[in-house]
Amino acid sequence: MRILIVGGSGTVGKAAAAELGRRHDIIRAGRSSGDLTVDVMSEASVKAMYAKLGKVDAVVTTVGHVHFGPVATMTPEQFRKGLDDKLMGQVNIVLLGMDHVNDNGSFTLTSGILDRDPVRQGANAAAVNGAIGAFVRGAAIEMPRGIRINAVSPGLLEDSAAKYDGFFPGHEPVSNARVGLAYAKSVDGALTGQVICVG
Amino acid sequence: MRILIVGGSGTVGKAAAAELGRRHDIIRAGRSSGDLTVDVMSEASVKAMYAKLGKVDAVVTTVGHVHFGPVATMTPEQFRKGLDDKLMGQVNIVLLGMDHVNDNGSFTLTSGILDRDPVRQGANAAAVNGAIGAFVRGAAIEMPRGIRINAVSPGLLEDSAAKYDGFFPGHEPVSNARVGLAYAKSVDGALTGQVICVG
Ligand SMILES: NC(=O)c1ccc[n+]([C@@H]2O[C@H](COP(=O)([O-])OP(=O)(O)OC[C@H]3O[C@@H](n4cnc5c(N)ncnc54)[C@H](OP(=O)(O)O)[C@@H]3O)[C@@H](O)[C@H]2O)c1
Ligand SMILES: NC(=O)c1ccc[n+]([C@@H]2O[C@H](COP(=O)([O-])OP(=O)(O)OC[C@H]3O[C@@H](n4cnc5c(N)ncnc54)[C@H](OP(=O)(O)O)[C@@H]3O)[C@@H](O)[C@H]2O)c1
Repeated sequence: MRILIVGGSGTVGKAAAAELGRRHDIIRAGRSSGDLTVDVMSEASVKAMYAKLGKVDAVVTTVGHVHFGPVATMTPEQFRKGLDDKLMGQVNIVLLGMDHVNDNGSFTLTSGILDRDPVRQGANAAAVNGAIGAFVRGAAIEMPRGIRINAVSPGLLEDSAAKYDGFFPGHEPVSNARVGLAYAKSVDGALTGQVICVG
Repeated sequence: MRILIVGGSGTVGKAAAAELGRRHDIIRAGRSSGDLTVDVMSEASVKAMYAKLGKVDAVVTTVGHVHFGPVATMTPEQFRKGLDDKLMGQVNIVLLGMDHVNDNGSFTLTSGILDRDPVRQGANAAAVNGAIGAFVRGAAIEMPRGIRINAVSPGLLEDSAAKYDGFFPGHEPVSNARVGLAYAKSVDGALTGQVICVG
């Protein structure tokens, strides 16, 4: 298969690429890194990337920032950050990429653990993750040409545990290998409309 | 209790008001109807409404529009509609209303059945509902001063069944009375961080 991984040079993206790259051709896209550059928050940039890319069998997205901060003092602008970035960024890749995925291909988005196992300061992350999971559940039943759509919802990655030290009390970090397998389950498997949880 | 219902003159809002009004003082807000007018999508308007309102024991929101249409041809602009309206409208009411709810009070938002029981053309609705449910789950663990937050997720209301005829095949409409009880469970009960499903 020919697989685009948007965010393929990031922490989660590398985990997905390592597993999928064992048997597939991987094309990496990122804001400043990778084989193609794209800003997922810009429709024009996403369209330009797809025009260069041509057709693929699978699109994986491992991008997105949210706002971390206490809900008691969160502003609507701060809350919008996660919607504009992690949510709309990945939704743009799906809605604008529909014609660039071959019949019976797939989209795999990335959510995260914070909607099912919340932490302080994570209300925006939770909302965005919940939206991504529900979007794939809602979209899957009417995707055209046999195209499947799932989300992978990783726990805190081992490689990110130091960076988020103290923010995820009691969360057990998950290995790159386990996260990679979840993307394989979505891309190489037959599931659709599922949130594939790791941890 | 003194309870604000934003959208209290709508189909769902009337169901909530009928049940809660049996034992509480209800203040209704709406875009053009009710005791107070507000556009939940405008931060300035929400702030002005709260300034007039003073303090309440509970805030209930029963507002919001989403985009209905096939996912295969949905545009990012169309998808944003549900985020700007049903999601940010209700989030604005929470984030900007935090100081207007008394200690141990509550917020109750409205999502809907389409994230757990999807229908064609409902991918945007599903995403928005998923975001609302996950937001209350994430926010609940760090709400200040004992304030609780839940969402009610109604199925298609009997009073709306004719309007949506054909779009919800096999969905069993739910009665106003059952929907009203769900708001009572949130407002008068002790739950927090829950999605209270009806149907
Ligand atoms: N790390 C974790 O433990 C963890 C756990 C659960 C969920 N997640 C989720 O997984 C996703 C990726 O997280 P990560 O930790 O892997 O992040 P990361 O290491 O910072 O990597 C992000 C990748 O996405 C690219 N990117 C960022 N913004 C972009 C944009 N606007 N347009 C195009 N590409 C963009 C970056 O490209 P450049 O490097 O070129 O800028 C980079 O390749 C996020 O949604 C995060 O919430 C992460
Ligand atoms: N009806 C159903 O079967 C059903 C089922 C599940 C979930 N829901 C959800 O419940 C919510 C309400 O639906 P509904 O059927 O009750 O709608 P509705 O009958 O159209 O009532 C909407 C109410 O919200 C107010 N409103 C709308 N936009 C507003 C804005 N920007 N600012 C302030 N107030 C605004 C309206 O006020 P004005 O009349 O003054 O404009 C009206 O009181 C929606 O989020 C819907 O998705 C509905």
